Amino acid sequence: MSPTPDNDVPDPAVRAYLDAHRTDFLDDLAEWLRIPSVSADPERAGDLLRSAQWLAAALRRTGFPVAEVWPTSGAPAVFAQWPSGEPDAPTVLVYGHHDVQPAARSDGWRHDPFEPVARDGRLYARGAADDKGQVLLHTLALRAHLAATGRTAPAVNVKLLVEGEEESGSPHFTELVGARAERLACDTVVVSDTGMWSEDTPTVCTGMRGLVDGRLLLYGPDQDIHSGSFGGGVPNPATEAARLVAALHDEDRRVAVPGFYDGVVELTDRERELFAELPFDEAAWLRAAASHAVLGERGHTTLERVWARPTAEVNGIHSGYGGPGGKTVIPATAEVAFSFRLVAGQDTARIRRLFTDWVAERLPAGIRHRLDFWGGGTRPCLTPLDHPALRSLVRAMSRAFGQPVRFTREGGSGPAADLQDVLGAPVLFLGISVPSDGWHSVDEKVELDLLFKGAETAAYLWAELAVGRGPGPGPETGGASEPAADPETA
Amino acid sequence: MSPTPDNDVPDPAVRAYLDAHRTDFLDDLAEWLRIPSVSADPERAGDLLRSAQWLAAALRRTGFPVAEVWPTSGAPAVFAQWPSGEPDAPTVLVYGHHDVQPAARSDGWRHDPFEPVARDGRLYARGAADDKGQVLLHTLALRAHLAATGRTAPAVNVKLLVEGEEESGSPHFTELVGARAERLACDTVVVSDTGMWSEDTPTVCTGMRGLVDGRLLLYGPDQDIHSGSFGGGVPNPATEAARLVAALHDEDRRVAVPGFYDGVVELTDRERELFAELPFDEAAWLRAAASHAVLGERGHTTLERVWARPTAEVNGIHSGYGGPGGKTVIPATAEVAFSFRLVAGQDTARIRRLFTDWVAERLPAGIRHRLDFWGGGTRPCLTPLDHPALRSLVRAMSRAFGQPVRFTREGGSGPAADLQDVLGAPVLFLGISVPSDGWHSVDEKVELDLLFKGAETAAYLWAELAVGRGPGPGPETGGASEPAADPETA
Repeated sequence: MSPTPDNDVPDPAVRAYLDAHRTDFLDDLAEWLRIPSVSADPERAGDLLRSAQWLAAALRRTGFPVAEVWPTSGAPAVFAQWPSGEPDAPTVLVYGHHDVQPAARSDGWRHDPFEPVARDGRLYARGAADDKGQVLLHTLALRAHLAATGRTAPAVNVKLLVEGEEESGSPHFTELVGARAERLACDTVVVSDTGMWSEDTPTVCTGMRGLVDGRLLLYGPDQDIHSGSFGGGVPNPATEAARLVAALHDEDRRVAVPGFYDGVVELTDRERELFAELPFDEAAWLRAAASHAVLGERGHTTLERVWARPTAEVNGIHSGYGGPGGKTVIPATAEVAFSFRLVAGQDTARIRRLFTDWVAERLPAGIRHRLDFWGGGTRPCLTPLDHPALRSLVRAMSRAFGQPVRFTREGGSGPAADLQDVLGAPVLFLGISVPSDGWHSVDEKVELDLLFKGAETAAYLWAELAVGRGPGPGPETGGASEPAADPETA
Repeated sequence: MSPTPDNDVPDPAVRAYLDAHRTDFLDDLAEWLRIPSVSADPERAGDLLRSAQWLAAALRRTGFPVAEVWPTSGAPAVFAQWPSGEPDAPTVLVYGHHDVQPAARSDGWRHDPFEPVARDGRLYARGAADDKGQVLLHTLALRAHLAATGRTAPAVNVKLLVEGEEESGSPHFTELVGARAERLACDTVVVSDTGMWSEDTPTVCTGMRGLVDGRLLLYGPDQDIHSGSFGGGVPNPATEAARLVAALHDEDRRVAVPGFYDGVVELTDRERELFAELPFDEAAWLRAAASHAVLGERGHTTLERVWARPTAEVNGIHSGYGGPGGKTVIPATAEVAFSFRLVAGQDTARIRRLFTDWVAERLPAGIRHRLDFWGGGTRPCLTPLDHPALRSLVRAMSRAFGQPVRFTREGGSGPAADLQDVLGAPVLFLGISVPSDGWHSVDEKVELDLLFKGAETAAYLWAELAVGRGPGPGPETGGASEPAADPETA
């Protein structure tokens, strides 16, 4: 049996605390959700500040001895800290964000997006899942952890960093983390801004892709010229843009920029098996993608392609004439919006350099170009399956959900990698949102049962992280992802 | 010496007539130029009718026994007819247009574009060169022809067809020519709507390229989707559009649609030599093209590429995001505006079919498409260098200009091919405009010396066509294009 038998069943004291405070917690969350902290809207700057102040006050009420609003060059962040009473306790930094996507009733919401409505076991509001619900569950979780363990301070040193610009691309986050690295120092980062596979399949995300994006401008003739008089005799920037874009991929749909795959951390056979064990329904996935066929790098499944393989995508091309009717010009310019998704082992600066050189080498005489990257890019992050902290999270989540936990990754990119790299700490993703939650869309909601399972997971996690740092049976060697071989039960 | 010695020197009687009527003619032309017959502007419909009526009246004054305004589904055309007194005289149909491009003082003109100004040997006005000047010169030429020959009717049967929608793409021209084919029947078409190489180098155009153009729409996801969540897993219509466009050409910049070159009438060695003898200045040509390098089909010179080789051009591409800053989407749609320039031997319907099949075969599953062509296309036209009518024109022009005449082609496309095909007659291009005349641009002008040389050419042409139908030394066998071997002087 398990070496820690008390860890594989729910803790009745935690559950009792969560049940007793369910209504209060939801009232609190509703109050926060009423603040329209839309970071994309300059007119909401006051609401961003109110939202930060509200959270800082809520954290103080929770018991955090330190809860500060940190100004940035943009919207304010919130930092809080609650030291453990234990000597040598590890330090955990929880990351989330308090800003939300824009939302208006006129977008098609069934009700005011900033007036939360609970219905059918769900709470509907902008930010319910992304990300206020997932941030605030940590306050309830910490109180449950204390109540169940009889402690007055958490078993680990808990820090929170809740930024206010995530929905705007976190433009000042790297700067903030760098400037405050000392106070943010930690052993483990817990990101609560992601989701899980489905209501029925609890999962832990183990990595996100990185991102390098930018714009390529091509300049041909000084103005649009007549394709009859000159066509066939001079380079056409629309054609050259297309030739570059086409050359980005080979016939196997692999990225053809030389050196692009150098250093890529390939999936292990075990990881490919774990992906393959997920209940993937291609038709349902295509519906979610609003797409009509899968297509990608030869030799990989769809989940491998979107989670664990780097890509080159064109986000837009614009050149010359558009619309009905003919206008037989050779366009003066062409513009390509591009993005590369990166995986562990790829370096943003190196990818920028490779692409820069590749573009310059491929353009013919007569086509000048300008290449801009939007910032330095976002690094990929990946937590190894056998990392002790990841095992702690898997155990905590298995207890809360009463079933084995599987592994996913995220195809998107986020600021988690900055925390990983600047603070030198592994990143765990504790996310309980599900694909139907409608992030960035109308009628965003959070499933209340999952929200409280998330709080329960976090309540167990602090104790797990305090004790579960040694090696032991984990997912990599036949772990929590497999019902028949759960190390806690087998 | 020449078999027709009286043909290689100017006719003093013609010159005397032209000189005597110079002022009257320019006053007439100025009156016509004051009518702003802009076919693109629906509010100018009344001016189009006035312009047609003015021309019909001018033709009657010239002596045409028949001069009619022909209504079309759009702007009216003018038809006139003057039978020759000679039995078995050939029939010549002169083509031109009386509509003009839009123009406004506010575009940057030095003066009102519809108030002609003569200055420094030039007449400035919208339509001075394109095409009212080149149409009206035929009235002066006919009178000079009669005066110099003592005839009361031309040596050939002369017809004129002057359309009113050329600057709008001649949307009803094919219909008009088809419906009136019997009255338009002729042995030779003379198009007076083109130019010559330069003031110093009189040339005759021997062909124009054809045109097939349209738009390709690609449909991928039902809406723009997140390139992080789905990128690498589904087809991207921007990428597929680029791959199609890139695949249009091979590494030699030849059009790669299978069968595209089937039937193409290749340039003869002699034609390539004649092109090569033109005083081509690449730097000057690039300035005119507002371009910074030449690029085109391997194995051909720039003039061959733009005059005598078929092309595939992209006139526009539009898909997804544009502008600064990143937006990491996979676009829902992509749009490509394309055009093919065709040369003799290529059939518009066949090219449409080849491209349609080629597109359908190349798109991956998950990308739907729609392909539209703008009308049936414009056929290429080409007059063989050894055609007797072309020799007549070359002789007439050599006499007027006092120097050998060389050959050019036009890279653009025009309705001349409709006349050639529907009426079954070869097309001659009698054009005296030069590249600096500013067609479609500000400060359009015509060189008065060239305008009167054009009238002199036309005055000789009727006599040449009446007698010059037999074989004889011509450009194909070392002709008028070569100063040292001018058949008229050597």
